[in-house]
Amino acid sequence: MVEPSLVLYGALYERAMGVLEEALRETGARYALLIDRKGFVLAHKEALWAPKPPPLDSLATLVAGNAAATQALAKLLGEARFQEVVHQGERMGLYVDEAGEHALLLLVFDENAPLGKVKLHGKRAAETLARIAEEAIANPPKLNLDTEYREGAKALLDELFGN
Amino acid sequence: MVEPSLVLYGALYERAMGVLEEALRETGARYALLIDRKGFVLAHKEALWAPKPPPLDSLATLVAGNAAATQALAKLLGEARFQEVVHQGERMGLYVDEAGEHALLLLVFDENAPLGKVKLHGKRAAETLARIAEEAIANPPKLNLDTEYREGAKALLDELFGN
Repeated sequence: MVEPSLVLYGALYERAMGVLEEALRETGARYALLIDRKGFVLAHKEALWAPKPPPLDSLATLVAGNAAATQALAKLLGEARFQEVVHQGERMGLYVDEAGEHALLLLVFDENAPLGKVKLHGKRAAETLARIAEEAIANPPKLNLDTEYREGAKALLDELFGN
Repeated sequence: MVEPSLVLYGALYERAMGVLEEALRETGARYALLIDRKGFVLAHKEALWAPKPPPLDSLATLVAGNAAATQALAKLLGEARFQEVVHQGERMGLYVDEAGEHALLLLVFDENAPLGKVKLHGKRAAETLARIAEEAIANPPKLNLDTEYREGAKALLDELFGN
């Protein structure tokens, strides 16, 4: 099963949400997402005034897939990968920035958010989120699978497969 | 066989080359390419000072593929497609703009080319190239396959397959 490469919980999650909220306030963007490179949403925040967002899971999956797919393109230009990608449609735009090695920051903005602000505050938010992601990787949530659990599971499996 | 969706030749090709040359001069970019949406290079130009470019065919294929792949992403945001995409690496950047319905303009730039200039002059060049591409589509090169050729080919095929 594919699992997120990092999990945010407790204080780290709250800090990430604070950063996303500030990014929305400073840039005027509609939605802010922190996702991992596999496409899992780690945290997301919507502006109060923003209309109902598109399915954020799909958005995260497509963006993570696209970021991985552009790696061949980056290598052609002699880069390991692209740090920042801006997609601009007629009204809506999408700003994607690296939040460290494992995560990406997404900002969805419309024509009311100046791109300069989106990029400036997006970059800052991505840097803070990169540190938060690093902390989360360094301190993964502990699973309480103790010896007793392991022995029990082993006995059950042995019974099941008659071994 | 996959064929380019449009072909530039003669005066149209010269005009396209002129636009690419001007775009390089105005933006300070390294390489300028006009490609169709299938990934064929229609015209390309390198700045005199620029180092040897990466394989342009591969670049065109990857960019066209990526542009097609982001359509799902654009639709999620309520757009038909993205008009403009900027990929920014540590040193190198890639600017992709729609040159009408059938073609894309690519500008490869390094840290010496200000992004503002790349976008401003890139957008202008893309608009001119869109008109050139439209003309090329409206006046496709004529194939001189006359009645005699058709009859001859038919007879040959009949002979070959004994029909």
